[in-house]
Amino acid sequence: MSHDRILLTPGPLTTSLQTKLAMLRDWGSWDAEFNVVTARVRQSLLRIVHGEETHVVVPLQGSGTFSVEAAVATVVPRRGHVLVLDNGAYCKRAARLTTMMDRRCTVMSFPDHEPVSPAALREKLAGDASITHVILIHCETGAGVLNPLAEVAEICAAQGKGLIIDAMSSFAALEIDARKTRFDALIAASGKCLEGVPGMGFVFIRKAVLDGCAGNSQSLAMDLHDQYVYMEKTGQWRFTPPTHVVVALAEAIAQFEAEGGQPARLDRYTRNYETLVSGMGALGFKPFLDPAVQAPIIVTFHAPAHPNYDFKRFYDAAKARGFILYPGKLTQVETFRVGCIGAITPVEIEQAVHAVALALKDLGIPSGAPAAHL
Amino acid sequence: MSHDRILLTPGPLTTSLQTKLAMLRDWGSWDAEFNVVTARVRQSLLRIVHGEETHVVVPLQGSGTFSVEAAVATVVPRRGHVLVLDNGAYCKRAARLTTMMDRRCTVMSFPDHEPVSPAALREKLAGDASITHVILIHCETGAGVLNPLAEVAEICAAQGKGLIIDAMSSFAALEIDARKTRFDALIAASGKCLEGVPGMGFVFIRKAVLDGCAGNSQSLAMDLHDQYVYMEKTGQWRFTPPTHVVVALAEAIAQFEAEGGQPARLDRYTRNYETLVSGMGALGFKPFLDPAVQAPIIVTFHAPAHPNYDFKRFYDAAKARGFILYPGKLTQVETFRVGCIGAITPVEIEQAVHAVALALKDLGIPSGAPAAHL
Repeated sequence: MSHDRILLTPGPLTTSLQTKLAMLRDWGSWDAEFNVVTARVRQSLLRIVHGEETHVVVPLQGSGTFSVEAAVATVVPRRGHVLVLDNGAYCKRAARLTTMMDRRCTVMSFPDHEPVSPAALREKLAGDASITHVILIHCETGAGVLNPLAEVAEICAAQGKGLIIDAMSSFAALEIDARKTRFDALIAASGKCLEGVPGMGFVFIRKAVLDGCAGNSQSLAMDLHDQYVYMEKTGQWRFTPPTHVVVALAEAIAQFEAEGGQPARLDRYTRNYETLVSGMGALGFKPFLDPAVQAPIIVTFHAPAHPNYDFKRFYDAAKARGFILYPGKLTQVETFRVGCIGAITPVEIEQAVHAVALALKDLGIPSGAPAAHL
Repeated sequence: MSHDRILLTPGPLTTSLQTKLAMLRDWGSWDAEFNVVTARVRQSLLRIVHGEETHVVVPLQGSGTFSVEAAVATVVPRRGHVLVLDNGAYCKRAARLTTMMDRRCTVMSFPDHEPVSPAALREKLAGDASITHVILIHCETGAGVLNPLAEVAEICAAQGKGLIIDAMSSFAALEIDARKTRFDALIAASGKCLEGVPGMGFVFIRKAVLDGCAGNSQSLAMDLHDQYVYMEKTGQWRFTPPTHVVVALAEAIAQFEAEGGQPARLDRYTRNYETLVSGMGALGFKPFLDPAVQAPIIVTFHAPAHPNYDFKRFYDAAKARGFILYPGKLTQVETFRVGCIGAITPVEIEQAVHAVALALKDLGIPSGAPAAHL
């Protein structure tokens, strides 16, 4: 099969042909025309969070995790103390990178099928004045849980703590308004809900804390303050930018704006999500999460109870029909994941559900139902 | 003008249409087919330096500088002492990132129009036993000087020092043979002489030192040992790879191999270089470097002495004719640079020289000759 498969994954995801076509040109990274693209991308990103008055945005080469690390390295002073609200794999990764760079780090653990608890956070902060920053993953892609951003931000603001939000898989799909929600840093990346290709991230930093960030980072590559200062002065990236990725993002953002911005994107993803859950439900599959805490971004399903089930064979059978599923990331329960994001609509999701039905048939599994106790 | 301009820059550079077309597909980063691409790229890279027996290669997201930082962070222990052989801007950057990550760093300065001195290195190492690692930039793109890799490597090997080579702009064009030249780490990137698009680097690490690298890095993103272990175990990148950049590199490498590998590429770049220097010479321009120390990668020219000269106007006039020049990076003398690398041949270089001639005419400059004392 020579045409593209549909990626039902949390990024890299399916991008539009128009976005990919933007990469058919080489750009000089020093050239004024490329600087214009960078500036336009940065302005558009700020508009999406309504952060023009309060924040700056700093793009960074590399994967989204590079930007998470850079945000922590830049915003948290060397003697800072970071509290990670942990309900999944990406929270654990944030704690690991914080610890590795020798910032004091405390982890508050929550079950991976539940949002983190604002009440527990309030209590924790009241009991430990040494905490300077809180890290929250907005939508934990490990299971797909939507965390209570507004409440967490309110508590951090009230107690004078810096909030670092990993909004990797929520940015541009779920509402985030910097005029209402106070954060010191918010991180996302090109290859997620903006539907660009992977290869760069970006970090919003609150202007009020920006100057104080100078000299925090022990890493040159991760130093967003240095990247910011250089970019403001020259219009250029400090080090070679992934030019093709940047122009693809500019093109993807133009499509995002033409679609109607964040509300329109959320609407499409919500319809994708509803089509997915109802279609998979008809095949017997059961989502891992309570719908009340589920973001319409990526859905974790329990593996079917039937003994014929084997993820690799199931994956291959769906792939043979043009759809790429995603493995689960939970350690306790066997699951798999299906993304609702990317340049796809309920039409592709209907086809994906049909492909899953045929995959079950291939494996001789009459129903996607999980074990009875789940 | 809607067609692509020719980039006479040290990267991003002009890539072939075939390379760019490889980006018109979305790949699942978890999918076996993408793992095959990653594995193939890694094997090809190892073959280029004949490093199959002695080295591993670890790709990394981000710009080339990210990979330089990662190489130092991974290979140099926290109590290591790094000696940077400095004859240009990229050497200074290597020293800066080494110092920032709290590794002891000593800089030996050489003039930027001369190669670093192996004799001075030998003496320095004899006088300071605390030095554990030496950093050498193979081809210093600041001015375009070719540094004496073989001699430096021999001295480091004889004295038991680890050698870290930044081969960013020489790899795949100049000969580097791991069977003859001992190095602990060698760094290059996708968007240089392999003629891929920018967005990832890669580091060759000597197998004999690899295990000892565990735990050296204070940065999760920059930890090449961790990236290596994960990649060997799973075939996948630790964090989201720039999938489109990776497949473009795979395609660029296929073209590199079809062209005849490193010797053929060096031959083409040498012809580009000779065409450039002779054509520019006929216009009165004078190269900054003695031809004996000049790599056929990027040529620094003195700015014309004529009072009408202004780099920005000169650049714009050449650009209007389809060619992107590169600014100088020297602080003492006014210069500009012209790259000989990328998917271009002497035909494009001839046209570029003609564009420069017309640019001079636009500016009312009768000759490109520099001030008489230069």
